Amino acid sequence: MIILGLDPSLSCTGWGVVRAEGSRIAHVANGEVKTDAKAPIAERLHHLHDAIRAVIGAHAPDRAAAEEIFLNKNPQSTLKLAQARGAVLVACAAGGLLVNEHAARLVKKSVVGTGGADKAQVQAMLKVLLPGAQIAGADAADALAVAIADAHLVPRV
Amino acid sequence: MIILGLDPSLSCTGWGVVRAEGSRIAHVANGEVKTDAKAPIAERLHHLHDAIRAVIGAHAPDRAAAEEIFLNKNPQSTLKLAQARGAVLVACAAGGLLVNEHAARLVKKSVVGTGGADKAQVQAMLKVLLPGAQIAGADAADALAVAIADAHLVPRV
Repeated sequence: MIILGLDPSLSCTGWGVVRAEGSRIAHVANGEVKTDAKAPIAERLHHLHDAIRAVIGAHAPDRAAAEEIFLNKNPQSTLKLAQARGAVLVACAAGGLLVNEHAARLVKKSVVGTGGADKAQVQAMLKVLLPGAQIAGADAADALAVAIADAHLVPRV
Repeated sequence: MIILGLDPSLSCTGWGVVRAEGSRIAHVANGEVKTDAKAPIAERLHHLHDAIRAVIGAHAPDRAAAEEIFLNKNPQSTLKLAQARGAVLVACAAGGLLVNEHAARLVKKSVVGTGGADKAQVQAMLKVLLPGAQIAGADAADALAVAIADAHLVPRV
């Protein structure tokens, strides 16, 4: 089973694809989609949408996963994040993918073993779990983490 | 010039199309897109996106307009609203439309004459401004109001 993990945000959306077979999880690909902060928001959302559609077309995942959305302390950031998430979820549904949602703590617990793990701990564990993978950046790492967590947490049928 | 007004929300997105010629504004069409509250959010967003793409295909607007997004008192409502807005803005950008954003108070002031107008006052004024228009509901009315405000507020080129 191929799983697409997503870490949506307006400025930089991370994505990561893993292959899960039995208890084995292998890295397939990962990347980040950046948008031009000077462009109108509708164009930025369209760019995110099309880029994630292209990822789905290239890697043909069986399902997708993202962290549950939560209210950031900065209201403007929350509004941007949620709109970006909307654009990315449209791309998933257009590609026929179900999107599983996982609480951030559960993703960390599943990958590192503790729900309070910090970003550095998650990234260190990714090097162990996906040896040799070149990771595009912090957002791609978060996306790979949610894909791995999804492989652990959701039965594969 | 044909203007598409939008009032995005996850459960019911209103849309309204007007034709603006000089100082004259005429009703073209309006409607509401409802989504199934029991469906996964990605499917609901995809449905909104495709329905608004169909409206754009049918009416070929020259530009679009929506109210500026703001933080609702209910955080969960805000997150749903913003994701719906993301899906709708992707549809606009995919259709090549610029989306003008207007503050809610400015829309009311432009349509009714006062920024503190309530929904009933806006709807009563729509009957005067767009005589004979059959309005699909409260969300379609809000969408027509933002389209009219856009015609008033933004130069047509």
